[in-house]
Amino acid sequence: MARINENYLKLQAGYLFPEIGRRVTAFADAHPDAAIIKMGIGDVVRAIPRSIVDAMKDAAEELACDDTFRGYAPDSQGYEFLREAIAAHEFGARGVTVAADEVFVSDGAKCDSANIQEIFGLDTTVALTDPVYPVYCDSNVMAGRTGPADEAGRYGNLVYLPCTADNAFAPPLPEGHVDLIYLCSPNNPTGAVMSREALAAWVDYARHERAVIIFDAAYEAYIRDPDLPHSIYEIDGAREVAIEMRSYSKTAGFTGVRCAFTVVPQELRGYTAGGEAVELHPLWSRRQNTKYNGVSYPVQRGAAACYTEAGAAAVRDTVGFYMDNAAIMGSRLQELGYTVYGGANAPYVWLATPAGQDSWGLFDLLLNEAHVVGTPGAGFGAAGEGYFRLSAFQQRHLVEEAMDRIGKL
Amino acid sequence: MARINENYLKLQAGYLFPEIGRRVTAFADAHPDAAIIKMGIGDVVRAIPRSIVDAMKDAAEELACDDTFRGYAPDSQGYEFLREAIAAHEFGARGVTVAADEVFVSDGAKCDSANIQEIFGLDTTVALTDPVYPVYCDSNVMAGRTGPADEAGRYGNLVYLPCTADNAFAPPLPEGHVDLIYLCSPNNPTGAVMSREALAAWVDYARHERAVIIFDAAYEAYIRDPDLPHSIYEIDGAREVAIEMRSYSKTAGFTGVRCAFTVVPQELRGYTAGGEAVELHPLWSRRQNTKYNGVSYPVQRGAAACYTEAGAAAVRDTVGFYMDNAAIMGSRLQELGYTVYGGANAPYVWLATPAGQDSWGLFDLLLNEAHVVGTPGAGFGAAGEGYFRLSAFQQRHLVEEAMDRIGKL
Repeated sequence: MARINENYLKLQAGYLFPEIGRRVTAFADAHPDAAIIKMGIGDVVRAIPRSIVDAMKDAAEELACDDTFRGYAPDSQGYEFLREAIAAHEFGARGVTVAADEVFVSDGAKCDSANIQEIFGLDTTVALTDPVYPVYCDSNVMAGRTGPADEAGRYGNLVYLPCTADNAFAPPLPEGHVDLIYLCSPNNPTGAVMSREALAAWVDYARHERAVIIFDAAYEAYIRDPDLPHSIYEIDGAREVAIEMRSYSKTAGFTGVRCAFTVVPQELRGYTAGGEAVELHPLWSRRQNTKYNGVSYPVQRGAAACYTEAGAAAVRDTVGFYMDNAAIMGSRLQELGYTVYGGANAPYVWLATPAGQDSWGLFDLLLNEAHVVGTPGAGFGAAGEGYFRLSAFQQRHLVEEAMDRIGKL
Repeated sequence: MARINENYLKLQAGYLFPEIGRRVTAFADAHPDAAIIKMGIGDVVRAIPRSIVDAMKDAAEELACDDTFRGYAPDSQGYEFLREAIAAHEFGARGVTVAADEVFVSDGAKCDSANIQEIFGLDTTVALTDPVYPVYCDSNVMAGRTGPADEAGRYGNLVYLPCTADNAFAPPLPEGHVDLIYLCSPNNPTGAVMSREALAAWVDYARHERAVIIFDAAYEAYIRDPDLPHSIYEIDGAREVAIEMRSYSKTAGFTGVRCAFTVVPQELRGYTAGGEAVELHPLWSRRQNTKYNGVSYPVQRGAAACYTEAGAAAVRDTVGFYMDNAAIMGSRLQELGYTVYGGANAPYVWLATPAGQDSWGLFDLLLNEAHVVGTPGAGFGAAGEGYFRLSAFQQRHLVEEAMDRIGKL
């Protein structure tokens, strides 16, 4: 009798975004004339810059000729041309040391943040912020590191770090020991960014506890404030305790093209039950070489084109466009009387739901009355209740139209 | 103290192909003038057909314009245009019923065959053929379903099904109960193909034992004999017990482009500890939606182009080319006195090593003396010792040159 992985049965309802998709589809089917404006799932809408598309097309063309054809990459970690460019432009240019062989190119920060837990023991104690990007949580539930969920949707054995207006959405250090900590900065969903001092306190904590930090920096390109850190490796000692993830999804418009990368420093260690230190870099390498086969070659060429002069300028332009959206949304919503967070160094505006309204209630209200799709805070965790996320990833006229419609409610 | 997944420490040496890569690189560095002919890793060498490359380039071009830009796919399972084409052309055309919503598009049969075990319990008893494609084994070791390896490299708790010349490389039914069975036909590495009767016996076994068969059909396009089944779903009752995997790697030349698919029929069930039947389709869907984000859009368009008239003809031509290679290799090696298996309905020739020579010995001999890279049978498992795999994925003149060099040894 083939036994299933019963941990899956602990999962609460569907994964958040498919659930939103179902509600939107049901509404659209019932109201085929409604012009729905999507600011929910956080998907980008602007074209991929010309020079990046051309790089992908040129690479595809290479594959059409026997003499320039490429099959399997040398290994699943990514081509050296891309890993070298990442090390130089994403880190070296900011004075941060990351070597090309510490970079693992992949098809998504979501995938990496879901898969990374596999190299850790099942008895690892995991800390998550609340609200949280659901993948960090669900991947650990599926692996069996948690008990069942309680009525609030909180799983047993997970350590939740509430991030609310009361603490300015800054993840508090746990009271006791934890082994593995997921931090996301700029944060999805709250739009908050961790300060240098806050990150340093986490690195200190991890060094003291011999814990590992999974640092998701998928939105670092959206940081405007020059005092805020873009990489956890800007903090002394972080290379001993942190894995960092980045993505091309929200910079080059690669949500449908799929490319990202994860940095596993050579200094990083985990431990056996006997207390013996073990390098994590070869473990992740083994995981990727066994369960993964690398990113599509034309996609890797496209990602590398983000570091040319034309590519970098176009990416900056796109990021600036979305951040202008965020600024418009922030000021319009404040004028309308909403309490608004985020949006200054992140493409997400995080607003407090009006008194007496829960977040799925606001979701249904905005969908039904304004035909605007956002994301209910409760979908990100119990401490997300009372908040609502609106994404700045939309065309300008639709952002303005959405604000007008919300104003008329 | 962040504990590692200590199951990784049970893994024997490196994953096979990186190990071969290391030996070849070391030889090439020491002998920079040697013209090495690679027939080891099973990577294709012929260009991707023009119409398929053009479909990828056109799709990339769509992404360069706001009006035709696509971000996230509707879900991670793959675009309907591709899943419908797969259901119709890969299955419907052979009289096999597979629905589009049973098809999960992915970035590799390797990835899927490594990931599929995640939806099963850790106490599942796993049966593998020996020799075996290493990913089936290693992914289960990493998940913790096995004990440590013995001196022969066999892991505790795994059930090995030896496939040797003595049983014509046909996987024998286990003597007792197993829960999960990995079958690969046409087989990598032996090149043997399971007959309809043999597959039917396995389906009967699985139905009786309420077991699940993971059927890897990545090489089905190489079957020439019209009596051999291409899909396990050609066997009555297989939809209740089998998951099937296919790939574009060895048909369209997608080893570096990455596209494959897995079929999980709606009828397929696993069981809870309490004996309750649970549909596997939603479990795999949840796994993929949480830990994966779908195949690059231009790649999905390229895969769909395999089903146009021009695309299908070009793929048939490529497959025919490699099979002509296999025929040349088979007859030349037989003339040279080798005992040769496979190669008739699969792109792999599986030969017996000469008396007194083990498979890594033949590997080193061919590399050092003929500058030909193959794959030692022992790399695929203890029962692979005494055999050697040569891949037909090479240009014709190099196949002939390799046979000449082996002849001169």
